[in-house]
Amino acid sequence: MNKILASILLSAISTLPAHATIDKTADVKTTPKNIIMIVGDGMGPAYTTAYRYFNDNKATPAIEATVFDSILVGRASTYPARVSGFVTDSAASGTALATGHKSYNGAIGVDVNKKPVQSVLEYAKSIGKSTGLVVTSQINHATPASYAAHALKRSMYDSIADQYFDTKINGNHVVDVMLGGGWKYFIRDDRDITKEFVKDGYQYIDKYQALSSINNDQVLGLFADKGLPWALDDSQPNRLKSMTIAAIDRLDNNEKGFFMLVEASQVDWAGHSNDIAAAMAEMHDLHQTLIWLQKYVARHPDTLVVMTADHSTGGFTIGANGDYAWHPEFIQNLTASPSQIAKELQGQTFDAAPISKQLGFKLNKDEVALLSTAHADTEKALYIALKKVLDKRTNTGWTTGGHTAVDVPVFAFGMNKDMFVGQIDNTDIAKNIFKLLGKAQTK
Amino acid sequence: MNKILASILLSAISTLPAHATIDKTADVKTTPKNIIMIVGDGMGPAYTTAYRYFNDNKATPAIEATVFDSILVGRASTYPARVSGFVTDSAASGTALATGHKSYNGAIGVDVNKKPVQSVLEYAKSIGKSTGLVVTSQINHATPASYAAHALKRSMYDSIADQYFDTKINGNHVVDVMLGGGWKYFIRDDRDITKEFVKDGYQYIDKYQALSSINNDQVLGLFADKGLPWALDDSQPNRLKSMTIAAIDRLDNNEKGFFMLVEASQVDWAGHSNDIAAAMAEMHDLHQTLIWLQKYVARHPDTLVVMTADHSTGGFTIGANGDYAWHPEFIQNLTASPSQIAKELQGQTFDAAPISKQLGFKLNKDEVALLSTAHADTEKALYIALKKVLDKRTNTGWTTGGHTAVDVPVFAFGMNKDMFVGQIDNTDIAKNIFKLLGKAQTK
Repeated sequence: MNKILASILLSAISTLPAHATIDKTADVKTTPKNIIMIVGDGMGPAYTTAYRYFNDNKATPAIEATVFDSILVGRASTYPARVSGFVTDSAASGTALATGHKSYNGAIGVDVNKKPVQSVLEYAKSIGKSTGLVVTSQINHATPASYAAHALKRSMYDSIADQYFDTKINGNHVVDVMLGGGWKYFIRDDRDITKEFVKDGYQYIDKYQALSSINNDQVLGLFADKGLPWALDDSQPNRLKSMTIAAIDRLDNNEKGFFMLVEASQVDWAGHSNDIAAAMAEMHDLHQTLIWLQKYVARHPDTLVVMTADHSTGGFTIGANGDYAWHPEFIQNLTASPSQIAKELQGQTFDAAPISKQLGFKLNKDEVALLSTAHADTEKALYIALKKVLDKRTNTGWTTGGHTAVDVPVFAFGMNKDMFVGQIDNTDIAKNIFKLLGKAQTK
Repeated sequence: MNKILASILLSAISTLPAHATIDKTADVKTTPKNIIMIVGDGMGPAYTTAYRYFNDNKATPAIEATVFDSILVGRASTYPARVSGFVTDSAASGTALATGHKSYNGAIGVDVNKKPVQSVLEYAKSIGKSTGLVVTSQINHATPASYAAHALKRSMYDSIADQYFDTKINGNHVVDVMLGGGWKYFIRDDRDITKEFVKDGYQYIDKYQALSSINNDQVLGLFADKGLPWALDDSQPNRLKSMTIAAIDRLDNNEKGFFMLVEASQVDWAGHSNDIAAAMAEMHDLHQTLIWLQKYVARHPDTLVVMTADHSTGGFTIGANGDYAWHPEFIQNLTASPSQIAKELQGQTFDAAPISKQLGFKLNKDEVALLSTAHADTEKALYIALKKVLDKRTNTGWTTGGHTAVDVPVFAFGMNKDMFVGQIDNTDIAKNIFKLLGKAQTK
């Protein structure tokens, strides 16, 4: 952009009133061919901030900016329909992000009157785009389900899996590329949905190694019984990134473009567990995914990437207990997740040395005593004790095993990213995507 | 702005790369005559979100947007100089916001080498603008001090008060209009700075009533020994708003314009106390101030208002303890602050009825028992117990009596507001204001 135009732009914009409510899309003539929606489940403002410090290279004087820092455009409110108060669950917020409708906690793709409402993914499919779901949870978990199914309760996992096969849009299955976990729900006594998909021409894979040899634009890839292993434990480094690359490799064969949902599902699970080590490792996988996506968008400027969180989880705070400090150096070198460390020690004689090695720092006497006592109790007690050690070392705070209502950051890059600037509501994200897809809005 | 221009604007902006680093001011020909910097001390992302729900009218189906919602433009990192880790105090962050320099925790207007660095207020004064400080703390507290003084430690209150009189810029005192608390530091055994100011032509007032009859463009107004009473207890409803109106009434007599700092100082103090009722009342005073300022800027479009927080305080979370709920209705009707209620009860026989009346809801048996036991102990115990009751009723979480490192929201409206869009650092706020004031940047 030349400098004179920049000058016109800035002075014109600065004359807008504070409450400007111009329709930012009314005059947008070009719309993106591809839309990638990313949800960092549970990734409230403290998570993206903490990742900057977790990711910081202490050997350099400056604190390095993250991709999150380079793409932030605003923030979103997340409250559910009034019947559910101010704190949302992932179903109501997934439904808001996917359909533009506020609903009750637990709702999957249905409004507050329990009526199914169309998602942006379903609409994209109806106009001939390819569609994808790439998640680290089971692929029929609340967030992806909100984009591709309709259920009165999020716990209706089998019904949601059924719908992924049974629902047809213009004669086609709803989602072309599905990658994540979920054998338990797709390979059942009453039904093997993987075989049904194969019969309908889909490729089915169940090992990460097969990600690089997908040869079909319609594919179901399931890599775990329910959710994938923690990023800290998984055999595939940065599995979210690997799955995203594999999915886009198939999706962008459609000349009409694609819509896909990418979810870093387990940031939320780490938050529910109050597990700061697992949380930052999940954030790292997402960050690596974003680095790749920035390069993809540079090559494909007709692509929009929008990212937000559905809510914040755990009441996570960067610093706690009156101490003005946070020490990510104690969670930068784990070789396994705290839950995996606890699991491996079951039935073993307690020995602090291998635990120190897995955690990446030498345990002190008090910590050894705490862990030894917990180990004598249960695996769960040891997991809790390990998290307590890491919370104390890092000075991390938590207030809940559930969600909180703080507004979440909104990020966007690529074509039409400016539609998402400033303070918006989670429903605005779906509404804007519908506009970009050309769907007439109904009030 | 007409639609064709809007179209050009939006399509041009949307072609910017994700990492766009154009100098947004290089070509800005018009700069604001007046700049109002607002700091919500401790006002992290949970505070502005919570205020939306605190402020919500339950009688309407929609959740009302706040002024915060209409002016959000991005967020800022707050980390201090590396020597102080990742969690800042109000002095280091005040210094960053005022001067553009990262410094150590405790630093007032000095850099990490303890060398004084110029503030935007000082520079504004040097080019002939009028200057103001309006705060609800003592006016020599860390944040305002960072704009008008230089000290190695924030605790050097007397020295800071001395500097407000002793420092001269082009023969003038640094600040023209000072409103807040601080008799203790200005009227001392060794020196009565209020009299020195009067001798130099300043008006001195020490009662809110006098705010409406200031007849001098240079004025020192002190209304309390240290900080002002809590908003919940103060005799002047919305004292921050009243002081801001009075200050601007004098400051905008200067045809060269003005720079002022407005600080909602006690959001932070409520956070340190983990006092959700006091916190929301302080936010309400700030919100009322913003409503007035929006009208002022509508009448004076050559004014820029920038607002942020210096950090977040208390590890406040909207929801806690596994419960997906937050109930602001229990803090909407207090007639006194919890600390004032505790104070008034000292030496009195315990009686639940008047406490229920002051809190605005009927205490249950467990609560009465808790408060009665605490009352028999100390005033402090009763204050703690009252906060515990309110935390439980509202389902509010806290993790610390100190600060946390979460990025803080950034708000702006009026001329050149777009300079503050997206993810920035707290030092960028000072750097941008220096640019707008026309100061050549040094690296």
